[in-house]
Amino acid sequence: MVKEVITSTKNNRVKTLVKLRQKKLLREKLGQFLIEGYKELSEALKSGVKVIELYHCPTFFRDDSYIALLEDAEAKGANVVEVTEDVFKKISHREGPDGLLGIGETWTLKLEDLKLSKNPVIMIVERMEKPGNLGNVIRSAEAAGADALIVSEPMVDVFNPNVVRASLGMVFSLPIAVSDNESVLKFLEENKITAFAATPHAESIYWDADMSGPAAILVGTEKGGLSDFWMKRDSVQRIKIPLEGKQGDSLNASVASALMLYEALRQRKG
Amino acid sequence: MVKEVITSTKNNRVKTLVKLRQKKLLREKLGQFLIEGYKELSEALKSGVKVIELYHCPTFFRDDSYIALLEDAEAKGANVVEVTEDVFKKISHREGPDGLLGIGETWTLKLEDLKLSKNPVIMIVERMEKPGNLGNVIRSAEAAGADALIVSEPMVDVFNPNVVRASLGMVFSLPIAVSDNESVLKFLEENKITAFAATPHAESIYWDADMSGPAAILVGTEKGGLSDFWMKRDSVQRIKIPLEGKQGDSLNASVASALMLYEALRQRKG
Repeated sequence: MVKEVITSTKNNRVKTLVKLRQKKLLREKLGQFLIEGYKELSEALKSGVKVIELYHCPTFFRDDSYIALLEDAEAKGANVVEVTEDVFKKISHREGPDGLLGIGETWTLKLEDLKLSKNPVIMIVERMEKPGNLGNVIRSAEAAGADALIVSEPMVDVFNPNVVRASLGMVFSLPIAVSDNESVLKFLEENKITAFAATPHAESIYWDADMSGPAAILVGTEKGGLSDFWMKRDSVQRIKIPLEGKQGDSLNASVASALMLYEALRQRKG
Repeated sequence: MVKEVITSTKNNRVKTLVKLRQKKLLREKLGQFLIEGYKELSEALKSGVKVIELYHCPTFFRDDSYIALLEDAEAKGANVVEVTEDVFKKISHREGPDGLLGIGETWTLKLEDLKLSKNPVIMIVERMEKPGNLGNVIRSAEAAGADALIVSEPMVDVFNPNVVRASLGMVFSLPIAVSDNESVLKFLEENKITAFAATPHAESIYWDADMSGPAAILVGTEKGGLSDFWMKRDSVQRIKIPLEGKQGDSLNASVASALMLYEALRQRKG
């Protein structure tokens, strides 16, 4: 099955792989991004993401399912390339790599492409900066069965390798769109979706809000919260998560998102 | 205020600081542990943790509140020691250090020392391995107003610097005990606390469980879940968090903990 082996860390393709990890502009220019690890690549293949190339180093494989994944990827059109241990360590961005690193083809992330259910729940993050946080929120939103996640006023690239990783590959199965506040507001209005803004300054607790109809849950940055665009808008309902501890002054973004998404789910199913 | 300055990375105390970061056995032997960062040190001082020494490098300070913290620590008995930039980089375990690193005195973490409210909620983690996960669960439990957190069959040291950090210093305000399964079970029985075990294999959803009385929420490792000690015990109620996504196969431990702790809170307050 294997047709070529890269043995030099100075190989040009190795250099491109390192740049694809670091440079958002190159990812956009080439329309390509990195997918590292068995779990993430399985999710990508399952979700129909086009895997263009698959670099692998069998020394690191953990069991035979890795071989099956290579075969599956090749059958779906991936160019499979073996590399030496040194080369793999150079292209990997993990501690404890598992010997699989793919190049995937990016796709468009447009609001107008989102397909919503009859009674949708949408997660919206505004100006989120940390890739790990975004990945974690994606994971929570996918688990809670959200229809989609919208990244408004993006500060981080959805195809950043740390987003892919923190989401455990859920970035491939959850529909995601990237947009700006004005367009997101218009989208919510057109789809008759009520926006709920999470803020410590609200009077209502999230479990007292009626999220049984079409609902969008908005969270901002850990430091500054949501912008006035959402906070000062009459059509937006402000809700808070009570902090009951002696010192507690905030919750992690993915925890806060999960609490509100699961409350919406409870109100629908409970 | 400042009496001494360490300028050499080869200073013996610098070596001890590095060892305190890495070695659990040394932390136990000396009864000392590291507290790095303004936020974490403020929480420690506020919660009455004894800060024995406070190493600092003013070049990294972000504002004047750092000076106030030094003064507060010194007034409470800390030996304040200035170090050079190079030395601080050597003793710090963060990217982007803020110039404050203290040595705190550990305290005992005994089950019998926990003081419970009349209708307590307790978080129990079994065999948790990753310090970051434990710290995040501590942060969630503190925010949800849990009475205490119990680490059963410990695999990670509560005084590990990554636990302190991921908890954002909440490790200082939330009462914590470390014990073994047999003693924890006895403690729950004596205090008439119902145990709820989180597992994907349960039939009841967590929001359908009655957590309005004295309740303990148990989570296991991300990989293996809870052990049979809890899973096969008749007195333990098994509950699950529904996973509604197309691919979702688990939730992060701190997210799962927060969902169940906030459900207990909702049932008490809602």
